Amino acid sequence: MNTVRVSLGHRSYDILIGEDLLQDAGSLVRERVTGGRVFLISNLTVFEYHGQKVVDRLEAAGLEVVHLLIPDGEKSKTLHTVENIYTYLIAQRADRNTALIALGGGVTGDVVGFVAATYLRGVPYIQVPTTLLSQVDSSVGGKTGVNHCLGKNLIGAFYQPSLVCIDTDTLSTLLPREFQSGLYEVLKYGLIYDEVFFTYLCDNFERIKERDPETLATVISRCCEIKAEVTSIDEKEADLRRILNFGHTFGHALEAATRYEGYKHGEAVAYGMIAAAHLSHREGYLDSKAVQRINRAIFSIGPLPPASEVPFPRLLDAMKRDKKREEDRIVFVLLEKIGKTVIRSDFQEDLLSDVWEEVLRESQ
Amino acid sequence: MNTVRVSLGHRSYDILIGEDLLQDAGSLVRERVTGGRVFLISNLTVFEYHGQKVVDRLEAAGLEVVHLLIPDGEKSKTLHTVENIYTYLIAQRADRNTALIALGGGVTGDVVGFVAATYLRGVPYIQVPTTLLSQVDSSVGGKTGVNHCLGKNLIGAFYQPSLVCIDTDTLSTLLPREFQSGLYEVLKYGLIYDEVFFTYLCDNFERIKERDPETLATVISRCCEIKAEVTSIDEKEADLRRILNFGHTFGHALEAATRYEGYKHGEAVAYGMIAAAHLSHREGYLDSKAVQRINRAIFSIGPLPPASEVPFPRLLDAMKRDKKREEDRIVFVLLEKIGKTVIRSDFQEDLLSDVWEEVLRESQ
Repeated sequence: MNTVRVSLGHRSYDILIGEDLLQDAGSLVRERVTGGRVFLISNLTVFEYHGQKVVDRLEAAGLEVVHLLIPDGEKSKTLHTVENIYTYLIAQRADRNTALIALGGGVTGDVVGFVAATYLRGVPYIQVPTTLLSQVDSSVGGKTGVNHCLGKNLIGAFYQPSLVCIDTDTLSTLLPREFQSGLYEVLKYGLIYDEVFFTYLCDNFERIKERDPETLATVISRCCEIKAEVTSIDEKEADLRRILNFGHTFGHALEAATRYEGYKHGEAVAYGMIAAAHLSHREGYLDSKAVQRINRAIFSIGPLPPASEVPFPRLLDAMKRDKKREEDRIVFVLLEKIGKTVIRSDFQEDLLSDVWEEVLRESQ
Repeated sequence: MNTVRVSLGHRSYDILIGEDLLQDAGSLVRERVTGGRVFLISNLTVFEYHGQKVVDRLEAAGLEVVHLLIPDGEKSKTLHTVENIYTYLIAQRADRNTALIALGGGVTGDVVGFVAATYLRGVPYIQVPTTLLSQVDSSVGGKTGVNHCLGKNLIGAFYQPSLVCIDTDTLSTLLPREFQSGLYEVLKYGLIYDEVFFTYLCDNFERIKERDPETLATVISRCCEIKAEVTSIDEKEADLRRILNFGHTFGHALEAATRYEGYKHGEAVAYGMIAAAHLSHREGYLDSKAVQRINRAIFSIGPLPPASEVPFPRLLDAMKRDKKREEDRIVFVLLEKIGKTVIRSDFQEDLLSDVWEEVLRESQ
């Protein structure tokens, strides 16, 4: 088992990564909660795979477990789902010591985290992410929230979990496209922060795609380390944390412009990273060899759904609505070189349009 | 102008108290925001009295002001109102630097504070409370939130404002019952923390009730000092902050049992304080002279609406649902003596029923 510590004063917590970690869920949770009762919140698919095991282990550790299933998918990441959970918690008289456990992917984690942040002005919660994307990204760092019909993740709170428990075995049941989607975010960590890790990934894609447990544990741990380091320094995304949004300016826009139906989050970020690489090249940072290396890495993960049907003006409009803009400027994370970022926000729309054309050409 | 500093590290902020402070709203706000645009959120009644003045002063200081009116009253303190504000902010493209200004009473402050805590995972906000109750209570301390149909303030977040700006002149337009309701909470501060202040209040009720500006500024400042001291030590209500809930166990229950229609919050707290005083006496803390002194102070503020129609079992049920209970215990703040509290939670229902009977007898 690997342990990554997220250092945030009295809100510090551990990320544990290992094979068959759910087997120890009882003692791991028991050590970190004060109340005798926990609410396990999951979705039907994930609960069918892993739910009973988690319930059994928690009960064996002497905890009373109430479980609640919520709908899955980005479409259910709404205030409406949040309200339903509030109502259930109130009806069951959950109090301030009642810990919530989020068992599932990013949607479950984000929704449960936001409920934890806002129910009775905050109750403890534990993340048990079961997708690669949520294991390396959304379960770590304390970003919680839901979508608004006018935009993604516009409602939310920074609120840290008490524990993140990553069982790499849960990845064996993941659909190939889900798994691939997570790998794009894995790649992001190498690109923004650690060239050695990026090279390691390029050299080990086969083993990773075979889901070799040991390789996965190494890869996930490194991603969590990087995210923990970045978010410890800048919890609220005032500065350094923004580098985690590499690929997300175009990525979020692509998701929004297709109403979150055309792409998995990681796939949209993959396009965003290609765009950011090109923009970095145009601005004189990356040489064309580095851009090629990045493209090769992205395409070696697997095929991306085509992006040709999204006209640039719709993308631009979505970028202008993004919450990461500053006053009227659209903010981009670029690469000075592989492993090092630079934040820029002063681009003409024409240039962005050209970059997008280039992305479309290359992805055909 | 009096200044009370709330010390919470990098989230510290000032409470400013004085006559005609709105006149300086422009420079006070301008100093504390980074964006060029602010959203002034208020309700119709308050905006008619003070809105244009605030808008003018902000604009004179070079700020762009967007104003938005929300419905007033406890019934509109809902997620629905919060959602409407989100939608408006998104449509107006409010970004992370956009500060929200809450101009109004407790409902406006709580709702706007919760929106500020959760819009884009947190934007700055400034409290401009215009009722006595919100000036001494809800605008200070960072508790934000809304009601759920099953209970009051069950949804919310701890989120600190950048500034609290208290203009005592706004109290001159307050309805007598609103003003009285605030005075019960004023009394609470003396009872839980400062016998000298309690005595000062008892000696100066006439001047306070005449709304003498200088006396009001003194009184409000002392309340804010006490609240700031308590919440600086214990922001998240883990321990010391609970003393602020003196009178609130019975008080909240009385409000809930009458669906928030029978009593103003301060009136319900007044009943709760009488109950807590009796319970303190029964438990051997307060002598009967002290209880009489407390009752006299409460009734000298003015008449309370009768409580005789609320049967004890309904109160008890409401107390059991309160978010401040711990596991299955109902928590009470009692007085060891005037100016000093003790927290207790081990009471038989019979005893609580007897205490409530006594409260009813006395208030007839």
